Amino acid sequence: MSQPMEGIYTPNITPIDARGRVDEDKLCAYVDWLIERGVHGLYPNGSTGEFTRFTAPERRRIIELLCSHVGERIPILAGAAEANVRETIDACDTYGALGVRAVAIVAPFYFKLGPEAVYQYFKEIADHVSVDVTLYNIPLFASPIDVSTVRRLALDCPRIVGIKDSSGDIPHMMRMIAAVRSQRPEFSFLTGWDAALAPMLMIGCNGGTNATSGVVPELTRAIYEAAQRGQWDRAMQLQYRLLPLFDAMIGQPEFPEGFRRGALSRGWDLGQSRQPLSPEQIQTAQKTQEQLVRILGELSQWLPDIAPANATGSPSATSPASDDFIERVVREVMQQLGR
Amino acid sequence: MSQPMEGIYTPNITPIDARGRVDEDKLCAYVDWLIERGVHGLYPNGSTGEFTRFTAPERRRIIELLCSHVGERIPILAGAAEANVRETIDACDTYGALGVRAVAIVAPFYFKLGPEAVYQYFKEIADHVSVDVTLYNIPLFASPIDVSTVRRLALDCPRIVGIKDSSGDIPHMMRMIAAVRSQRPEFSFLTGWDAALAPMLMIGCNGGTNATSGVVPELTRAIYEAAQRGQWDRAMQLQYRLLPLFDAMIGQPEFPEGFRRGALSRGWDLGQSRQPLSPEQIQTAQKTQEQLVRILGELSQWLPDIAPANATGSPSATSPASDDFIERVVREVMQQLGR
Amino acid sequence: MSQPMEGIYTPNITPIDARGRVDEDKLCAYVDWLIERGVHGLYPNGSTGEFTRFTAPERRRIIELLCSHVGERIPILAGAAEANVRETIDACDTYGALGVRAVAIVAPFYFKLGPEAVYQYFKEIADHVSVDVTLYNIPLFASPIDVSTVRRLALDCPRIVGIKDSSGDIPHMMRMIAAVRSQRPEFSFLTGWDAALAPMLMIGCNGGTNATSGVVPELTRAIYEAAQRGQWDRAMQLQYRLLPLFDAMIGQPEFPEGFRRGALSRGWDLGQSRQPLSPEQIQTAQKTQEQLVRILGELSQWLPDIAPANATGSPSATSPASDDFIERVVREVMQQLGR
Amino acid sequence: MSQPMEGIYTPNITPIDARGRVDEDKLCAYVDWLIERGVHGLYPNGSTGEFTRFTAPERRRIIELLCSHVGERIPILAGAAEANVRETIDACDTYGALGVRAVAIVAPFYFKLGPEAVYQYFKEIADHVSVDVTLYNIPLFASPIDVSTVRRLALDCPRIVGIKDSSGDIPHMMRMIAAVRSQRPEFSFLTGWDAALAPMLMIGCNGGTNATSGVVPELTRAIYEAAQRGQWDRAMQLQYRLLPLFDAMIGQPEFPEGFRRGALSRGWDLGQSRQPLSPEQIQTAQKTQEQLVRILGELSQWLPDIAPANATGSPSATSPASDDFIERVVREVMQQLGR
Repeated sequence: MSQPMEGIYTPNITPIDARGRVDEDKLCAYVDWLIERGVHGLYPNGSTGEFTRFTAPERRRIIELLCSHVGERIPILAGAAEANVRETIDACDTYGALGVRAVAIVAPFYFKLGPEAVYQYFKEIADHVSVDVTLYNIPLFASPIDVSTVRRLALDCPRIVGIKDSSGDIPHMMRMIAAVRSQRPEFSFLTGWDAALAPMLMIGCNGGTNATSGVVPELTRAIYEAAQRGQWDRAMQLQYRLLPLFDAMIGQPEFPEGFRRGALSRGWDLGQSRQPLSPEQIQTAQKTQEQLVRILGELSQWLPDIAPANATGSPSATSPASDDFIERVVREVMQQLGR
Repeated sequence: MSQPMEGIYTPNITPIDARGRVDEDKLCAYVDWLIERGVHGLYPNGSTGEFTRFTAPERRRIIELLCSHVGERIPILAGAAEANVRETIDACDTYGALGVRAVAIVAPFYFKLGPEAVYQYFKEIADHVSVDVTLYNIPLFASPIDVSTVRRLALDCPRIVGIKDSSGDIPHMMRMIAAVRSQRPEFSFLTGWDAALAPMLMIGCNGGTNATSGVVPELTRAIYEAAQRGQWDRAMQLQYRLLPLFDAMIGQPEFPEGFRRGALSRGWDLGQSRQPLSPEQIQTAQKTQEQLVRILGELSQWLPDIAPANATGSPSATSPASDDFIERVVREVMQQLGR
Repeated sequence: MSQPMEGIYTPNITPIDARGRVDEDKLCAYVDWLIERGVHGLYPNGSTGEFTRFTAPERRRIIELLCSHVGERIPILAGAAEANVRETIDACDTYGALGVRAVAIVAPFYFKLGPEAVYQYFKEIADHVSVDVTLYNIPLFASPIDVSTVRRLALDCPRIVGIKDSSGDIPHMMRMIAAVRSQRPEFSFLTGWDAALAPMLMIGCNGGTNATSGVVPELTRAIYEAAQRGQWDRAMQLQYRLLPLFDAMIGQPEFPEGFRRGALSRGWDLGQSRQPLSPEQIQTAQKTQEQLVRILGELSQWLPDIAPANATGSPSATSPASDDFIERVVREVMQQLGR
Repeated sequence: MSQPMEGIYTPNITPIDARGRVDEDKLCAYVDWLIERGVHGLYPNGSTGEFTRFTAPERRRIIELLCSHVGERIPILAGAAEANVRETIDACDTYGALGVRAVAIVAPFYFKLGPEAVYQYFKEIADHVSVDVTLYNIPLFASPIDVSTVRRLALDCPRIVGIKDSSGDIPHMMRMIAAVRSQRPEFSFLTGWDAALAPMLMIGCNGGTNATSGVVPELTRAIYEAAQRGQWDRAMQLQYRLLPLFDAMIGQPEFPEGFRRGALSRGWDLGQSRQPLSPEQIQTAQKTQEQLVRILGELSQWLPDIAPANATGSPSATSPASDDFIERVVREVMQQLGR
């Protein structure tokens, strides 16, 4: 029996060049930085990667490039949803052959499907692919995958090896774990709602696919490691540090513009999204960026690696976050919270 | 100044053959039947046409085929939304060159955009295409297009010539008409919510893009014509006939399966949707079909053209609905309603 | 068999004096004005009357006072929902003995009940009261009453004689009418969503309980009368006049503050709601009032009776709206809409 | 500076006798049992107590009775929302004089108020009462109290000493704690969403007002104590035990019928709710009860105190839960979850 997928996977932003194309060099450099900073895996062609705004050939090229560039360094979970079952199966098999650890498939969107149709969709795919599949539940954007559907799929489809859930609902995650884990102990539960990362780990998640890890990989890693060691107070205090960062980025219209601004605050200019912004929106985004720089500046007093980019815009240096600094963050937060 | 788009456009189902491909011959034959039965226009690659479940080349082929097959008989409003602004502009221009009357572009979906971003998206497209554009508001599935955004776009973009609104909200439609018509009298307001077709025409809509017109084109045409003549009592009584048919089809999981069953009840086997159904769902759909045949049977007592298909499954004959029969429907409904 | 309740019932605001008590003199004077201006009935202790913000004895006193003051002039539909079934039955019987035409009972609120419990609640009440009962469906605030529940109650309970529906959903109203009218032809369907009054009358409603009729009773009456005569174009044009007034008042935080301001614009100072407002909210309300005065001023160019109050704040004079003026409104609106 | 309110407060069901009146003897006996079983406080006239279904005098009598019966044994948090600000202030002062620890006031319901009006409502009350006040946020039923409103109220109103939040949203609770605690360290954060009790304690809540504590006070106490000692794994495992119990009771139409059935399963027949149930609903409730007895039976293999009632229906004995038994629950759950 295989091991569950664990740790923090980064649903990476897709860098865009000035002419609106995928910026392949930037993508490779950015991914190198993420790996150095300690992310456990990558999740290209996710929502943060704006998969719906690229064409099918572009999505395929992104996976090809990353598989070749990343090699064995960290595993890749590849977003593989296409227009229909047949196209999705083709993408899955292509990505499997390229060496991804697994594919992630969002429930059908645009049309809102009921549980039966969601089951049938994933069953049909899982029965015909030669790669591991994770379900992707994001009820804000796509048809919801409910607990009993997850259970049915987990029991009926050995190819389905996990679920990424972005609902952020703790009891919902507990219900899924309670419904599946005793019979599929290697089935992975990954949270996509960064605002609840530490509590999700406490209730038994194996990790997360968290957009903030593309901005502060040091912090999400520190939370994960504290949780691994059972240091729940520390995990929780770090979570209180993550929350305002996440809120500032997720509250920014239009998703994932806030995360683009977050990356920029760390020195990574990943270009303009393909969704055009109005002058007012650009102004708002710039204010968000100033706020992010301020939050990152405060964070870096205890965790110097998380410094915002310097004036030249080059990414900050890459020495790993030391335990000492994390200790200091925790102490400070605890004082502030008066506990 | 051009004329507003008017009448009932059929958002046609896309026929699928046994191997899962677009059934081109069936599509042409079905469309011929619709034209004979009196629909004023076609709207391929709409939600009923399941545009998201086809690939970009398939969507293009559908428009190509229909333009060539339909010719000058009736105008075509072509769904043209693609993955992003650039791809969408390309599709628009391609379809324009093929001779469509206009394109329809749904607001961005998956990601839920705010009004500013929705405006920017359509503005960017409208500024760069060489074909007339209609907005497509379907808040159930896609980012909503609010009244003031419609107004801004109508005033700023001469290329935008109408809106299809599937919200079904009468006061919302009135607000849009009040906000736009005095300055853009040729701007078209088309309702996509069949359940409110007659009242929508009464408050000033120019027509509709109604999925039921793919099943009972005679009935939607009769409603439209009654409205044209100011025969509101008749329009309303016919509307009471349309409602249970629409409800039976729209209530059927999964959309647009109910409309596929509706077409089948008229003798048009348009194949299986690409979204797989479970055995339970197929059973439910069969029951819906029995119900539809019963409703159509009742209808045909007054409106013989709307007979369900005979045992051989061939489409029913095509003599146009006579006023006499419509008169009888109206009388009967009025008696039943006891008014 | 009794006659259905018909026409426009005013869900009247409850006047409050400077010490926070019900202002009984003001209430009587205001109601006299409404009657003179042509409302067909009164609906005290409705949502617009803020029934939840008064005590049980206050609610009873309001009905007592109005029954005695109004006498036989127009019928009264009395809001009678109390804390539970037993208290509600007591209120119903009390109001019945006082001479109300019927009581209106909102579905249970706070707790959101399912259809079974909603049925059981109304059944229990209807089986034990000695007065006619209308259901009150306002899904925005209370448990929804769905179509099949309305049908069951209409068939099982002769005491239930109508429904007031504030959902504003045209097809929903049609479904209720189709489900009930053939078997209970005297059952009343009243719309509480002023924004759709004319279309609701077209699809067969018997009337409405409309808060705007407490501000512009002349206009709601004119819509009702146009509908009665089958003058749908006129009804619709008047509806286009009603809409911005309604929107301005309903959009005002907090309901029913906008309608208090509307009444004030007509010269009726009905006092402060018991829900305290912040200084910012009062400022917003004042701006709304200026807007209302402007809209009323425009209206009064064609319909002089709808003049905003003069400087002394006394209600405008009470000569009935002449057909000539209504004709002028209609003409002007039609020109503006360019039809 | 006073101490924050801490621990598990039971929002107790209101016992009803055969004639529909508050069963005062049963209420006292039930409350004695809860106290023996270790609840830290009582919360009468909450949602579980169905406060809206009682009259103002009944609500007052319940508080009077409990204050006199409970005495100094445990603190009482009294639900004090009445029809309007003035009535609510009167209730608060009455309850304060009777000796309650604090009152809890739900945000206005029926009408959905915006943040400004919610602030103004609580401010007005807090400025005029002579008792500590806790806010009660239950967005499912009442106007939501958002984070910035909580912060404003906490900073502006010394009388407001805490919030009960039933949203169940972990990041929302974290945002409130982060916004308030550094400046009001004694301000209490109590969760009303039992399904997330342990994670809520981990992120810093002071306790909860949990309906399940009226059924299994031993289990909620064990979770609280594990959390107090920093035994997060134990707390979490116990939480996995609580979840199916809570789900079975909360999923039962109509709230709080499931909790009445839960109490009955422990031997407490607390009578029929004033909301009438249909025969079908009673049947469903009986099945839920069988399910609850089964879940309680499994629980009691490790935690004998949580045995379902014996055949005679008398409450099970009252020896406190020993740590040994809790240890056994934890071990078993961990094995089942395969961690």
